[in-house]
Amino acid sequence: MTLTTHGSDVLLIHENMRPILPALGAAHEVHCLWDVGDADAFLKAKGSQIGVIVTAGENKVEPALVERLSRLGLIVCVGSGFDGVDVAHCNARGIAVLAAVGANADDVADHALGLSIAAWRGIAADDRMIRGGGWLASNRLPQRHSMRNAPAGIVGLGSVGRAVADRLAALGMDVRWWGPRAHPGTGLPRAASLHDLASGVRLLVVCCRADDSSKGLVDRTVIDTLGSDGILVNVSRGSVIDETALIDALKAGRLGGAALDVFETEPTPAARWADVPNVILTPHAAGVTIDTLHAMIRLSIERVSIFLGDDDVRRKDLLRESVA
Amino acid sequence: MTLTTHGSDVLLIHENMRPILPALGAAHEVHCLWDVGDADAFLKAKGSQIGVIVTAGENKVEPALVERLSRLGLIVCVGSGFDGVDVAHCNARGIAVLAAVGANADDVADHALGLSIAAWRGIAADDRMIRGGGWLASNRLPQRHSMRNAPAGIVGLGSVGRAVADRLAALGMDVRWWGPRAHPGTGLPRAASLHDLASGVRLLVVCCRADDSSKGLVDRTVIDTLGSDGILVNVSRGSVIDETALIDALKAGRLGGAALDVFETEPTPAARWADVPNVILTPHAAGVTIDTLHAMIRLSIERVSIFLGDDDVRRKDLLRESVA
Repeated sequence: MTLTTHGSDVLLIHENMRPILPALGAAHEVHCLWDVGDADAFLKAKGSQIGVIVTAGENKVEPALVERLSRLGLIVCVGSGFDGVDVAHCNARGIAVLAAVGANADDVADHALGLSIAAWRGIAADDRMIRGGGWLASNRLPQRHSMRNAPAGIVGLGSVGRAVADRLAALGMDVRWWGPRAHPGTGLPRAASLHDLASGVRLLVVCCRADDSSKGLVDRTVIDTLGSDGILVNVSRGSVIDETALIDALKAGRLGGAALDVFETEPTPAARWADVPNVILTPHAAGVTIDTLHAMIRLSIERVSIFLGDDDVRRKDLLRESVA
Repeated sequence: MTLTTHGSDVLLIHENMRPILPALGAAHEVHCLWDVGDADAFLKAKGSQIGVIVTAGENKVEPALVERLSRLGLIVCVGSGFDGVDVAHCNARGIAVLAAVGANADDVADHALGLSIAAWRGIAADDRMIRGGGWLASNRLPQRHSMRNAPAGIVGLGSVGRAVADRLAALGMDVRWWGPRAHPGTGLPRAASLHDLASGVRLLVVCCRADDSSKGLVDRTVIDTLGSDGILVNVSRGSVIDETALIDALKAGRLGGAALDVFETEPTPAARWADVPNVILTPHAAGVTIDTLHAMIRLSIERVSIFLGDDDVRRKDLLRESVA
């Protein structure tokens, strides 16, 4: 007889998990924290039944909540990120954390490439210009350079960074990278530092993992080093860039342009960008496609079922994938 | 002694040639038709001195003007296109026509890729949404598919088409093509017809040469075949697409989206697009970068100098590149 130490129920904290509710609820007892009315009373009554939390990964999972779930054994992040989870706190309590690391790398990289070209070639600005009755001045030389042979830098060479590097290389760009973790397998040149990377490129694409070590990594100095000919693209997390310094640099023309899918606070307020030139904004949509979301949901539900199921070997294999 | 049958002077017709005037004027006698005052009087007095016309390629070079230049031997198109020139008429009169074929293929392909991703991933629309105070609805499933593994079609596999195909392949798209001319060297599957191509893809990128045979090629039937899930991108010429049919299809939701760098008339009027959904507009800028324009100008000036110079062998080699 196996002594089950973890709870048998699943807890969803944030309402953005609603789409997975039907499939998850068909196989497991699922509680939605936004729907229980008195959360404190619910946690007192049912907290010890919770074995698994399923969350988006970027949404905050409060350590105080985790403390109240005495038999929580697993947090499943549906997305590729897990920055809303205090992994050290979970690890210390023996709670595994799984994320769909790399699952949306191609989608994110496609979006990063689209943002890079749109910013470099002025696609969104030109669209606005035509809708305002404008056109290119035919007797002026163009202001834009070819992307071919131009130097581009990747910050963080994980699954997203590598996929972005492949795409920029297909444009004939001269790609190099820097990141906190070594990637010995790659043939791409690694800059000595982020500052060194920023000083040699005209396009900097931020793809690194968001954690304490990358908070504010792209600061005022890096932005000024990239300079008035440089374009900054971010598909990582808003916390990686000093957003106030970025806005200052764009307003002063010290940075050439930016294209951002992620922000310090999300949704980012429209007023914050109203008078900021040369910036393209998308709503944390880089990794969000029907196909990838379906794949991530399938993976997450399968992970919940393995964890709550009776196959100890599969459960052990699963828990080996926990992030640390 | 060589008998020079062509004139020794250069004629610029359209004011958009102003940027090349300094370098060209330093080596040759140059006349600017927009600056001569009475054009008729100018042509009577100086028409027989004109040996070369330098033009953008897409600007109309009227056969009636060509008729009045009795010693015209060459028309140099600075750009890659030559659709403003009546090549058959020139050939019949022994006038060579040179264009910078393929010179801006990488720039055009980068722009086509940027338009494709921007349309597919909704980058320009999302930027407008955020600036209007909006954000993604967090409890709704995304509406967009992955580009990876999705079928994409190229119309016309010249230098631009091949460069676009390489880039879409780097995204993991399933690329096939159709065009009026065979390209035996390529490994890409060729559809039996344009209709056949449109029926099997979710992205159709028009890259073909603009001539009489491609006028209105992408008609109402092709657009409807591409359908409400399909995206149409045009970096060729406006004449290749039935623009009225395209606008009707976008308004009715019979076509998913479009991204256009070229238009039936240019500049395209803002009012024409005011109530057309899901379309991105850029001002015939795909092939226009500083680097490529400098390279094209250098090439064009070199061609003029060879033609007007005294090296008969180089001139013969040059004229062999004339388009027919």
